[in-house]
Amino acid sequence: MTFHVVTLFPEFFKSPLEASLLGKAVSSGVVRAELINPRDFTPYKHKKVDDQPYGGGAGMVMMVEPIARAAEFVKAVNPTSHVVLLSARGRLFNTPVIEEYLQKYSDITLICGHYEGVDERVADYVADESLRIGDFVVSGGEIAALTVIDALARRQPGFMGNSDSLAHESFDASGAFEHAQYTRPDDWRGHKVPEVLLSGNHAKIAAWRKDEAREFSIKHLK
Amino acid sequence: MTFHVVTLFPEFFKSPLEASLLGKAVSSGVVRAELINPRDFTPYKHKKVDDQPYGGGAGMVMMVEPIARAAEFVKAVNPTSHVVLLSARGRLFNTPVIEEYLQKYSDITLICGHYEGVDERVADYVADESLRIGDFVVSGGEIAALTVIDALARRQPGFMGNSDSLAHESFDASGAFEHAQYTRPDDWRGHKVPEVLLSGNHAKIAAWRKDEAREFSIKHLK
Repeated sequence: MTFHVVTLFPEFFKSPLEASLLGKAVSSGVVRAELINPRDFTPYKHKKVDDQPYGGGAGMVMMVEPIARAAEFVKAVNPTSHVVLLSARGRLFNTPVIEEYLQKYSDITLICGHYEGVDERVADYVADESLRIGDFVVSGGEIAALTVIDALARRQPGFMGNSDSLAHESFDASGAFEHAQYTRPDDWRGHKVPEVLLSGNHAKIAAWRKDEAREFSIKHLK
Repeated sequence: MTFHVVTLFPEFFKSPLEASLLGKAVSSGVVRAELINPRDFTPYKHKKVDDQPYGGGAGMVMMVEPIARAAEFVKAVNPTSHVVLLSARGRLFNTPVIEEYLQKYSDITLICGHYEGVDERVADYVADESLRIGDFVVSGGEIAALTVIDALARRQPGFMGNSDSLAHESFDASGAFEHAQYTRPDDWRGHKVPEVLLSGNHAKIAAWRKDEAREFSIKHLK
């Protein structure tokens, strides 16, 4: 899967795309991430990419033309790229969206908003759709883009050592939480691992895990 | 506000804590972020921090003791630190949680899970609570921790040049989306800015923005 990230802050992505499991996925070619700065595409003087909001108000708004040109640069080479604006006004990103994206797209362009916002014509005429990662606001679309990249990357073949890791996890088809996990020691400062997990009885363990996940989900999911 | 991040991958945070608005907030002292590696606190041989899950299954599970010691290291100096495990099984992070945290905590410890999961005794006995950033799974708690740091940091006095920027935004007390923003040019490839925004009539502009936000929210929020 290939990601093109349109961002005023490409340096933001440096260490997350090098560290940890995502970094391994990038260096091994499981995913590709290209960073594109709209500042390199602006036709305006002094590399201007933002301006004051029409109608007044605080902060600066990102202009449509530099972003449109950056997206067109991507699309010229990757015409099937799905163009997404990360925006607090977007559709909520969740596991069903991940499943949809995995089925439909192999190339995704992620536009990161910043400052007070992005000219609405980016959402209306440049992006294919807008996504938000939650009902909260972050200081820029970069964190949201990174979240989307990671959530999709970890579902690519070869991302993790063992693809069984994906077999049981929170928010799978059942929509429930994953069961609790325990590892050594079996007695930690007097707090013991549930006995069934030490029993070696695979059927009982599977049943306990199913029950634990269901009960936990009933208690905590709303 | 001070954050202590307990993570096996401190290098993940390097560029996000240096770049962009969050980087400015860190360098100017508006927020502090300390990175703590549980590997430095493990009592086990070969700096071991994870082991196989009890009851079988794929992947490795992070052990409770190294994380507990890292958290205790923080609490020894910062006894009021609120200890949060980032976990797909946690409470959903959103604007009401942000408001609650801003009121209640000035020091927060964020424990990043990784691999197949974290020994459940961390959630039960080490952390004060668990948070998830959405109904999806990411490859590690680092992205979630970064999201929480940014969402709280941007609400600190001095984070942005203009605090009015926070006056109208998505998911404020009304729970609705922010209104659309536009900037120059007023005619972009034939797509024009709504005329009222060019009128100079502040009352009409305020009314248009309120209506736009409400109508957009009715159409898109579920």
